[in-house]
Amino acid sequence: PHDGNVFQQKIPAAIELGNGFGKLAGYSQVAELGNIETPIVLTNTLNVSTAAAALVDWTLTQKGNENVRSVNPIVGETNDSYLNDIRGRHVKQAHVIKALQTASSGSVEEGNVGAGTGTVCFGWKGGIGTSSRKLPALLGGYTVGVLVQTNFGGVLEVAGVPVGVELGKYSFKETLDKSGDGSCMIVVATDAPLDARNLKRLATRALIGLGKTGGIMANGSGDYVIAFSTAYTIPHDSKSKFEEQKLLRNDDTSPLFLAVIEATEEAILNSLLMAKTTKGYQGHTVEALPVQKVVEIMKKYGKVK
Amino acid sequence: PHDGNVFQQKIPAAIELGNGFGKLAGYSQVAELGNIETPIVLTNTLNVSTAAAALVDWTLTQKGNENVRSVNPIVGETNDSYLNDIRGRHVKQAHVIKALQTASSGSVEEGNVGAGTGTVCFGWKGGIGTSSRKLPALLGGYTVGVLVQTNFGGVLEVAGVPVGVELGKYSFKETLDKSGDGSCMIVVATDAPLDARNLKRLATRALIGLGKTGGIMANGSGDYVIAFSTAYTIPHDSKSKFEEQKLLRNDDTSPLFLAVIEATEEAILNSLLMAKTTKGYQGHTVEALPVQKVVEIMKKYGKVK
Amino acid sequence: PHDGNVFQQKIPAAIELGNGFGKLAGYSQVAELGNIETPIVLTNTLNVSTAAAALVDWTLTQKGNENVRSVNPIVGETNDSYLNDIRGRHVKQAHVIKALQTASSGSVEEGNVGAGTGTVCFGWKGGIGTSSRKLPALLGGYTVGVLVQTNFGGVLEVAGVPVGVELGKYSFKETLDKSGDGSCMIVVATDAPLDARNLKRLATRALIGLGKTGGIMANGSGDYVIAFSTAYTIPHDSKSKFEEQKLLRNDDTSPLFLAVIEATEEAILNSLLMAKTTKGYQGHTVEALPVQKVVEIMKKYGKVK
Amino acid sequence: PHDGNVFQQKIPAAIELGNGFGKLAGYSQVAELGNIETPIVLTNTLNVSTAAAALVDWTLTQKGNENVRSVNPIVGETNDSYLNDIRGRHVKQAHVIKALQTASSGSVEEGNVGAGTGTVCFGWKGGIGTSSRKLPALLGGYTVGVLVQTNFGGVLEVAGVPVGVELGKYSFKETLDKSGDGSCMIVVATDAPLDARNLKRLATRALIGLGKTGGIMANGSGDYVIAFSTAYTIPHDSKSKFEEQKLLRNDDTSPLFLAVIEATEEAILNSLLMAKTTKGYQGHTVEALPVQKVVEIMKKYGKVK
Repeated sequence: PHDGNVFQQKIPAAIELGNGFGKLAGYSQVAELGNIETPIVLTNTLNVSTAAAALVDWTLTQKGNENVRSVNPIVGETNDSYLNDIRGRHVKQAHVIKALQTASSGSVEEGNVGAGTGTVCFGWKGGIGTSSRKLPALLGGYTVGVLVQTNFGGVLEVAGVPVGVELGKYSFKETLDKSGDGSCMIVVATDAPLDARNLKRLATRALIGLGKTGGIMANGSGDYVIAFSTAYTIPHDSKSKFEEQKLLRNDDTSPLFLAVIEATEEAILNSLLMAKTTKGYQGHTVEALPVQKVVEIMKKYGKVK
Repeated sequence: PHDGNVFQQKIPAAIELGNGFGKLAGYSQVAELGNIETPIVLTNTLNVSTAAAALVDWTLTQKGNENVRSVNPIVGETNDSYLNDIRGRHVKQAHVIKALQTASSGSVEEGNVGAGTGTVCFGWKGGIGTSSRKLPALLGGYTVGVLVQTNFGGVLEVAGVPVGVELGKYSFKETLDKSGDGSCMIVVATDAPLDARNLKRLATRALIGLGKTGGIMANGSGDYVIAFSTAYTIPHDSKSKFEEQKLLRNDDTSPLFLAVIEATEEAILNSLLMAKTTKGYQGHTVEALPVQKVVEIMKKYGKVK
Repeated sequence: PHDGNVFQQKIPAAIELGNGFGKLAGYSQVAELGNIETPIVLTNTLNVSTAAAALVDWTLTQKGNENVRSVNPIVGETNDSYLNDIRGRHVKQAHVIKALQTASSGSVEEGNVGAGTGTVCFGWKGGIGTSSRKLPALLGGYTVGVLVQTNFGGVLEVAGVPVGVELGKYSFKETLDKSGDGSCMIVVATDAPLDARNLKRLATRALIGLGKTGGIMANGSGDYVIAFSTAYTIPHDSKSKFEEQKLLRNDDTSPLFLAVIEATEEAILNSLLMAKTTKGYQGHTVEALPVQKVVEIMKKYGKVK
Repeated sequence: PHDGNVFQQKIPAAIELGNGFGKLAGYSQVAELGNIETPIVLTNTLNVSTAAAALVDWTLTQKGNENVRSVNPIVGETNDSYLNDIRGRHVKQAHVIKALQTASSGSVEEGNVGAGTGTVCFGWKGGIGTSSRKLPALLGGYTVGVLVQTNFGGVLEVAGVPVGVELGKYSFKETLDKSGDGSCMIVVATDAPLDARNLKRLATRALIGLGKTGGIMANGSGDYVIAFSTAYTIPHDSKSKFEEQKLLRNDDTSPLFLAVIEATEEAILNSLLMAKTTKGYQGHTVEALPVQKVVEIMKKYGKVK
């Protein structure tokens, strides 16, 4: 278990750039060193710098970090400018600091929450979604958890059922004519003991989960996967020159790959199912996915009885 | 139109490494220079060098190449060792040369043909498959064509229908316990005027098509996408220091991304639908996908009426 | 010539990660789209977010950008915490805005200026340095200009002469025992018509110039090269689906590669030669490179007569 | 110590593409899995496939490999077509097999040997060169060994002395007018316990050593660095799902980075110093570097007393 000072006890991590049309902070140091040293903050496109500044402040003031003079903040974003007055840049450092201070364990809120408040996905209200898979003991018993912030276009598919087509919702304005501002942030956590190289491989597979919901990683999309392992930490300072690690072999990674595909697909669907109809900037309204209609369609296609 | 000497008139290209557990020849030069200078040959894992040698020979002997002293052959592969005596390395340079000499335009054979003769996909007989999409004129009118060589594990999904589950075929021995020798070679051709950077982006999306059939890019899989454009050529020698190109803008690439996802998914399914039950090495037999049963399942799930 | 609205007229660009231990903002979008859409700001490690926020503000308020809702700010940094109270985060958005507003053409200040005010290089005072090379007309006549912000360790070499050794200055505390906070930001501009792929190749070579001064890209170094071309721009909006470009062929890039190596080496040396002895945070003092002694050493080694 | 079956006991490794204009076999699998499973063979450009075929044969026939059906051969190359009838493709599999069978420990031959027989470097005869550095015990006591195959253009610098300029040898035909066939293969071995990620970082630094001799990674150059560690092996089959490794921390890699820069620079110089004047294909003759003149020049520049 982690004591909360992520800077002093860094986390093995990797970031995959599905489509890099985004403003994610922190990529290069993670790619180089294979770890992250701050919490991950999600916000909107024009507030990445605000959130990054807050993460730096917060890290500098954590107990034990009195001499820290270099911090690599990790901030992801999507563009919520249809529902949010994004140019107003309303997220302030105090909001981010408060979020960091009040973060807690336990179940994660989904739907219209946090950075998901103003997102739009497949033409319906998107948001935050989560899901996880636990492998059978025979395959290691590891858990893969996924959190997504969904804000991308395309035509929704639910477990292979063409829900978007059935509902006549083709989110093409954003994705095909102009590519718009769609994006999907995907955060993957696992307790499997993977190093940064295998975390990168895990991250890559999450994009298949995105694709299975109808996502296409359009030109204007910032599709990023941040994957990390909770199996071990990497101390900032150490008396030893070495890290002693017991890492999962390449040969045993495939079940995790399937798990992350499934969990990402499901997390995206959950983000839609939990989101609420939202009226926002300039009176723009985005409807929630009509769940009852979706159930009917799922029945029609034999997926729900 | 191309006169056939690919070395003298190179083709803009990019290669995406979905999962690099494979022996593809030619990656680094394509990544560096953004073009390919030979035909693409597909074979099995242990004959990549044979095919590459043949491509070199063939290129050296083409009219106009009398002074060529450097050739970057492109060879992809999958591992057909369940049905084929792969250690026997039965593909000879003469076979490859003959294939190059007799290559022709027109419709492409699918199923148990060429490098697809001994492949296994989702537990059924795989092979060569093709598909294409043509964009509406409004979106450029471009064509994206895909050819696949399918040899990977997982649980088959057909247009979102869980066919593998319904048929009780879980190709897990290969993909989850040990990751086996699964692989998928994907070749993408388009007449859209893309440079190497955007061809790389196009290639990346093909992997989503693979995922939509149930593929997971398992640890032991060599999943590669070679994408090229036929819109223009790059002369090996030129009096000019410049290439004058009229390239599609980033903003107009998204429809091609959707096209390549759909065409890849369909090409993989076609490879299964066209393959025949095959008895091979040591009496191993791999059944063809039972098409009639698949149709029944598709009806059950409302995808076929 | 550019009218100043970089967002509306984007610049072809690439970023090379020499050693990614740094906080550079903007990497992924440049890698994906091949262009930059803001001026480049250099600052210190803990103020990247401040500078990025200012770049966003500045971009949003430029004439013609009234509807812009997505900006990818480019900010580089080095760590000046020996001479600067870096935890105080004294750079404010107003400073950055003022720098953007007062930026002008003409000769560039070098040494203790801007983000170079507090840097240390090879144990002496570093700073901002610039240099350029112009190719002979026969090789295209292009110019390659380099600007560096030098803050890294090692043992200084000047045109191959072991100046660091002669002066007994081994900057090993930073680079070998702990790797410290050394970094080098390198910005490369050329009027050669290169696309993003060849700009990436150009950027890669700049690191050789760094190496020729004695740099080793230590573990703790953030060594980044941002390369862009002024030969053409990429409009944010366009009625055309196409970019028509006259690009330099791969075959004609090598002279530019030599040019960038030389200019980077010289720019780093200039940063040292122009910097002044500086007393800073907690009374720390870093001496300027003793130029007269360097001249004597250069004479001893036959490089100056 | 390794028993010789590299397939069964794989070696942690990484490959850096300095300039990828080359035909190296084996890149993608090393990038994906972080290891190599065959010896490394160096040859010329048009015989990569021959050498790869031989490596496959050799691996299949090693004791213990009776069931191996997938091999990723590693073959590097440079283009020796000025001195060698390269189109004749005179290297046969039997030559490669013999080389593998007779490989032994002990000092390595340098100069005109093996794949270095026909190479040209800075306009003089190149070849095979080696060098190494051993870190002080305080810094870990590790050894970094480098072997190079030198075949590239530019203007030679020896320990910073402009030897090429002094001798009036500007190898510009190859590097600046047309970029020709220059290339440098660099193989780096270390006993430091690095994982694939840190081996990649080590490999990157070797290119600085190349640059310090005057190399510029010209457009037509295939500059590759293959780095591996002998500190541990990765079993092909294992009863355990885990690798237990004691890896060097990121923080302690910098001394290795300096070591590989120095060793690469010196290995390149050794390749020149050990090579002999060679008359080859069509009577082409390439002179050895005139060592006595070099010594005089080194004296003039104060580097030799």
